[in-house]
Amino acid sequence: MQHPPAEIGMAVADVDTPALMVDLDAFERNLKTMSDAVAKFGVKLRGHSKTHKCPIVARRQMALGAVGACCQKVGEAEAMVHGGVTDVLVSNQIVGRTKLRRLCALASLAKIAVCADDAGNVEDLNTAAVEAGITLSVLVEIDVGSNRCGVQPGEDALALAQKIDRSSNLSFGGLQSYHGSAQHMRTYDDRQTAIGSAVAKTRETIDLLGKNGLTCGIIGGAGTGTYQFEANSGVYNELQAGSYIFMDADYTKNLKQGGGFIDEFQNALFVYATVMSKPGDTHAAVDAGHKAYSIDSGLPVLRDFPELEFAGASDEHGKILLNKAFNDSNKSLNVGDKVFLIPGHVDPTVNLHDWYVCYRGDRVEALWPITARGALQ
Amino acid sequence: MQHPPAEIGMAVADVDTPALMVDLDAFERNLKTMSDAVAKFGVKLRGHSKTHKCPIVARRQMALGAVGACCQKVGEAEAMVHGGVTDVLVSNQIVGRTKLRRLCALASLAKIAVCADDAGNVEDLNTAAVEAGITLSVLVEIDVGSNRCGVQPGEDALALAQKIDRSSNLSFGGLQSYHGSAQHMRTYDDRQTAIGSAVAKTRETIDLLGKNGLTCGIIGGAGTGTYQFEANSGVYNELQAGSYIFMDADYTKNLKQGGGFIDEFQNALFVYATVMSKPGDTHAAVDAGHKAYSIDSGLPVLRDFPELEFAGASDEHGKILLNKAFNDSNKSLNVGDKVFLIPGHVDPTVNLHDWYVCYRGDRVEALWPITARGALQ
Repeated sequence: MQHPPAEIGMAVADVDTPALMVDLDAFERNLKTMSDAVAKFGVKLRGHSKTHKCPIVARRQMALGAVGACCQKVGEAEAMVHGGVTDVLVSNQIVGRTKLRRLCALASLAKIAVCADDAGNVEDLNTAAVEAGITLSVLVEIDVGSNRCGVQPGEDALALAQKIDRSSNLSFGGLQSYHGSAQHMRTYDDRQTAIGSAVAKTRETIDLLGKNGLTCGIIGGAGTGTYQFEANSGVYNELQAGSYIFMDADYTKNLKQGGGFIDEFQNALFVYATVMSKPGDTHAAVDAGHKAYSIDSGLPVLRDFPELEFAGASDEHGKILLNKAFNDSNKSLNVGDKVFLIPGHVDPTVNLHDWYVCYRGDRVEALWPITARGALQ
Repeated sequence: MQHPPAEIGMAVADVDTPALMVDLDAFERNLKTMSDAVAKFGVKLRGHSKTHKCPIVARRQMALGAVGACCQKVGEAEAMVHGGVTDVLVSNQIVGRTKLRRLCALASLAKIAVCADDAGNVEDLNTAAVEAGITLSVLVEIDVGSNRCGVQPGEDALALAQKIDRSSNLSFGGLQSYHGSAQHMRTYDDRQTAIGSAVAKTRETIDLLGKNGLTCGIIGGAGTGTYQFEANSGVYNELQAGSYIFMDADYTKNLKQGGGFIDEFQNALFVYATVMSKPGDTHAAVDAGHKAYSIDSGLPVLRDFPELEFAGASDEHGKILLNKAFNDSNKSLNVGDKVFLIPGHVDPTVNLHDWYVCYRGDRVEALWPITARGALQ
């Protein structure tokens, strides 16, 4: 872990760069907006820690009503539990003896559940639970449209749920029904149609399980792009949105019903960067590249200079194109100036940093360690 | 820093995933190949630590004749110096009081040089050197074709070099003439032409500096894609290649003279991943995604199954397409099977991991901490 690029109480202008900055006012508004939304719909929130990798954030979500946290990795679950999160769902398959032992060991510290989509993996989960002397809650992941992981809804899901239910040290925990690829569909209608299909498949599976005496404790899924559909479905009872806390340049391209871009959540996470070179009036280079933000969903956007194009990134550099209108204006970007970049994709960007530099107004208020940064296993 | 996913002496098959694996035999061949090449050309190697982020690797390069290491960040330089590297060139601009103080503090532990392309930055460098009571070596970065950082060759470079030379606590250290965008030009001819132009601009600048009484100690540049041209130029005296130690999927697409792909260096770095889901016979999902490898230069390639397409990545998943020929063969990829992925781009991939799991044959031989991982500032 590197040392933090700021000190508490410091002026934002003095923070060293690149730094991962959290606008606490915007972050807190986002937490409240989602908390109010799930309360209105009568569902629970189980925010995804793969976004923030920080138990402080998970506990802030829980303080506003979230039932616990989702994780993708055992290492993330460990970081959450060690940081005081008492209820963790690993919304993913966990494969391999080492990881299963670690997962089961966590069950002595917190409520733990995990997902499965494979009969052999269910047997391995049971073996690990037997060895640890625990009963592990296992959800069946069904493929509701992403075509990545998950058994088919209906009979395949039933067969796996029955296998879990018959296992000596497992309990059937419900369904994992996450439609990942729907989150970034640009139009409202496309997202609504995709989740409509996911809801139908999930409902059909719940009904089949019910006829066979199996009750779903958790019916989980949803992300920031679609949460309103799952919340309003009458089927899902736990939402797993993560990115809403910070938002990113990609999510803000999603269109909402009736036109315009989704705007109930604000950008609260930025990569702070310094102009390190300005060789002429055509462009400026900042000191943040691939190692400070992920470009898998596109390049960053300049928060305060939307008129300028962020034209490219290399390992440690980002290139901002200047233009005549900008150069002729009263604005400028010179060597030493600092800029706020809105990352293209929040989750893999957070994973590049060891610290959140949390600020309110122009002052650094807190430094939060990103303890699950790099928790790959 | 996360704990390592392996133990020394363990079978490779037992290493937990995702893990960053170094094939020591291939790595050592790559070190030797470059060492022999620079010796043949009569130039020095100053391998770039932005690739490996690990002083153990830098010292292995130095044991075979490298004069020191390049860094891009002060934090990288600190990691190298603290790990025993005695001669560091920061091949980049360093902007801001905090970083300049850290940079100058390193000069009490090792030989330190840095680059500049801005008159104001040269003044700041001198102020920091005065405060630290040191003399700092400063190279002028010239733009030899990448159009990113660097003053123009010729008169602009001379003016900045003279300013450095006149500064009380700076010494003019030479020229930084790196053509980054030439490294990945696919054809031999394109790379040769690009570096031919860079060499001409560098030579012209050296001549102008010489007429004005300024001698270049270091004339540095070159990367894995072009090093032979700079080495053979009679102009450059230090090569800054980094990726050659590990190679990646992108570099192996470069064509060599006379046809075929460049092959003097072998892939020595892999992301080890486990099949975590195989919902049918169409695809398998592995447990490594954006947080285990960078896709800025393309998706990973399967080392042992080149016939299979690695079709997509998400945050924690990679998707491998299966096909009828594969499914009908005696090969298989089932839940729990492990695969070696050749990353698309080595530098930002290394930066995602805390440990190199170094193996020889089928045994883990060493665990090397990637101490400059996340050294952004």
